[in-house]
Amino acid sequence: MSDLAADIHQRLLERGETVATAESLTAGLVGAELTRVAGSSATYRGGVIVYATELKAQLAGVPGDLLAARGPVDREVAAAMAVGIRERIDATWGLSLTGVAGPDPQDGKPVGLVFVGLAVAGRTPAVAELMLSGDRAAIRTGAVAAALALLRDTLAAAE
Amino acid sequence: MSDLAADIHQRLLERGETVATAESLTAGLVGAELTRVAGSSATYRGGVIVYATELKAQLAGVPGDLLAARGPVDREVAAAMAVGIRERIDATWGLSLTGVAGPDPQDGKPVGLVFVGLAVAGRTPAVAELMLSGDRAAIRTGAVAAALALLRDTLAAAE
Repeated sequence: MSDLAADIHQRLLERGETVATAESLTAGLVGAELTRVAGSSATYRGGVIVYATELKAQLAGVPGDLLAARGPVDREVAAAMAVGIRERIDATWGLSLTGVAGPDPQDGKPVGLVFVGLAVAGRTPAVAELMLSGDRAAIRTGAVAAALALLRDTLAAAE
Repeated sequence: MSDLAADIHQRLLERGETVATAESLTAGLVGAELTRVAGSSATYRGGVIVYATELKAQLAGVPGDLLAARGPVDREVAAAMAVGIRERIDATWGLSLTGVAGPDPQDGKPVGLVFVGLAVAGRTPAVAELMLSGDRAAIRTGAVAAALALLRDTLAAAE
């Protein structure tokens, strides 16, 4: 995955763009991966780890009524997290992850269900829905890889 | 380090306490480590990744004049990050990290210099100053281990 992070860093650097993250089940793994690259402070601004449900509203700007209606593991919540963190941290791109790492289902959602959101100004946020298998560690690693791939592929398609 | 995280989770669970994180050079690694443990949502609330300097004020509550006077890698800034994140996320403990992962010095501070802060209500925040050696990855890993050890040892001493 460090190749993906390096690729993202290089593409953002060439475009003069930045990224911010809002993570739930991965709890910082995406931020950690993006900053393995030396010089990443030029392209990664920071993020929030919104592990407790209410922090998704407080720190990532998810509307409280949406969060109450849908629960934390939801397509629209992922989109709102990506939009919210992009605006709050003033980055070009907002990347979000919410899902169920297990071992137990959460709020009626199955283990392995993950939503990855990606927001940029002037475009409807993209959301990828994943159903990952494996244990807690494998689901978290798979979610990180999917988030990085979504950002990298979107940057590549924009060139 | 997962033993340390499991130990912390168990101690916090028994005490009915929680922790929040504010990370700079580790960019989410401490949050990720604390949440490797199944059931960690009972003891880990969330955190902020304040990679860009100004986010230490905006998201972690470091006073702007302190940040301007001392720069981001500083003992008092680490203390303010720990106090600030504890209050903003409403956790029992606030754990913070700021330092220079390298490869280059930052704001006149040498590669490997790291401050770890730990705050709890009614007590002056503790700050550990580290001078870590090795490459970027080794410095980040060493910082995570030191932060977890500071929290674990403080919890153990309180029993």
